[in-house]
Amino acid sequence: MCPSRVADGCKRGWIVPIGGAEDKQGDMRVLQRFFELCGGKGAEIAVIPTASRLNDTGDRYEQLFAEMGARKVSVLDFDTRRDARERNRVQQIEQASGIFITGGNQLRLSTILGGTPVAQAIRAANAKGVTVGGTSAGAGILSAHMIAGGDSDNPTPRADSVRFAPGLGLSNRVVIDQHFRQRDRLGRLLAALAYNPFSIGLGVDEDTGAFISPDNVVEVEGSGAVTVVDADDLQFSSMAQVDGHAPVCMLGMQVHVLTAGATYDLETRRASAGTLAPVKE
Amino acid sequence: MCPSRVADGCKRGWIVPIGGAEDKQGDMRVLQRFFELCGGKGAEIAVIPTASRLNDTGDRYEQLFAEMGARKVSVLDFDTRRDARERNRVQQIEQASGIFITGGNQLRLSTILGGTPVAQAIRAANAKGVTVGGTSAGAGILSAHMIAGGDSDNPTPRADSVRFAPGLGLSNRVVIDQHFRQRDRLGRLLAALAYNPFSIGLGVDEDTGAFISPDNVVEVEGSGAVTVVDADDLQFSSMAQVDGHAPVCMLGMQVHVLTAGATYDLETRRASAGTLAPVKE
Repeated sequence: MCPSRVADGCKRGWIVPIGGAEDKQGDMRVLQRFFELCGGKGAEIAVIPTASRLNDTGDRYEQLFAEMGARKVSVLDFDTRRDARERNRVQQIEQASGIFITGGNQLRLSTILGGTPVAQAIRAANAKGVTVGGTSAGAGILSAHMIAGGDSDNPTPRADSVRFAPGLGLSNRVVIDQHFRQRDRLGRLLAALAYNPFSIGLGVDEDTGAFISPDNVVEVEGSGAVTVVDADDLQFSSMAQVDGHAPVCMLGMQVHVLTAGATYDLETRRASAGTLAPVKE
Repeated sequence: MCPSRVADGCKRGWIVPIGGAEDKQGDMRVLQRFFELCGGKGAEIAVIPTASRLNDTGDRYEQLFAEMGARKVSVLDFDTRRDARERNRVQQIEQASGIFITGGNQLRLSTILGGTPVAQAIRAANAKGVTVGGTSAGAGILSAHMIAGGDSDNPTPRADSVRFAPGLGLSNRVVIDQHFRQRDRLGRLLAALAYNPFSIGLGVDEDTGAFISPDNVVEVEGSGAVTVVDADDLQFSSMAQVDGHAPVCMLGMQVHVLTAGATYDLETRRASAGTLAPVKE
């Protein structure tokens, strides 16, 4: 799916993939930043815990955002595709100033929400300026091309190391992988780009958010890093020649490891040290 | 330590880091290629099993190289620094047409062989054209700056994720990491380069060899890949600003994943698809 068209004179909202396991007890840098982008004290946040099989996942985020001072938090648990067509729930998405999708199994998100009025409402909301974030599975689903599964623990790309599925489609500029450091997913992210180097790979560590601004600049917040893989200048990929578990030859990728303060512009494909750059004296 | 000076009109020998767990029962592509570079049927190979605590490590390689048709295989087990000064054993290094260093604990290699006549003889042999290879710990020790330890399972570089020690010093152009895919060592290889981007990182997968030619072109053989990390154009590294387990921001690295057939020139820093490039019709 593709992003909804942004109306003339409007700006798209922020897109916030979080790598999972974000801090919920300390200073909550990642969730706090998301909360501010939803409007802070005036925020009305819709939480979608559909990916999770745990009963209290939605309640946990409801409590967190309420404690931060949100005006309203609605937990919208879609368990079936029929749920995702219910007018009342869709309206709550339409009225939210921020939408948060929890972790769990991303195939639950794509199979239950894909192609429903809820998915359309999320895209439309983002196109008119609403912040949409997600953690873990909720991060993976945000882009047009979602990594649905594949190898973990593997920095070398292999022909069969990644499986795609269509995602919510808020952006088609990025392919997102999460728990990046913790589950060693460089190989499958590289394999994802080997298929089509158009997208930019974002490997998001746990307790870390890749905050994608309305102008498509990635800002990083949290205790880990966002690994940006840019295959735009790829000299060569053997993806079309290999199959099975054979390693894929990929020459000429640019890699940037961004920590909090650094930025990456998805339009110009330029990384910047941002606030990390030494101040000139 | 630095490489021995290559005499005028001479060529340095091949340097062959292998990522560990190379095939010893099938077609043995990696060991067979090493054997050919030692002279094939006429080869006289010195095997150094010092890194290993297993009694039969040396015997195993002796048998393999003998079955391939080597004229002579000598297993030289140095257990103490005194062993590494014994004239008779040093002479066997001097007479070999190929030297192979087995896996095990690379700190045994650096602490027992470092600074001894054996280490000097290995460097001198390579400078006069003798092929020197090693697997796993035996690969790590080959370069001037050896990764002595650090994090595995971590694609994000962290301030404390790598510890260096001086190696045998056959090349100061590369920093070698082994079991690369299998133990997820991108983070520590990146951290190694963050300290000083002069070196080129070679992450060698298991059952894979990075064959560094006398002209410093890396050729790949085996079932895995060699991940080349080139930090020469590094825009920014926060290594000097962070400490402890904090992630390091590194912007502007080039990464190439080379499979068998592809090459990388350590002098020009250019990757090539080599024999993998589609033939023009």
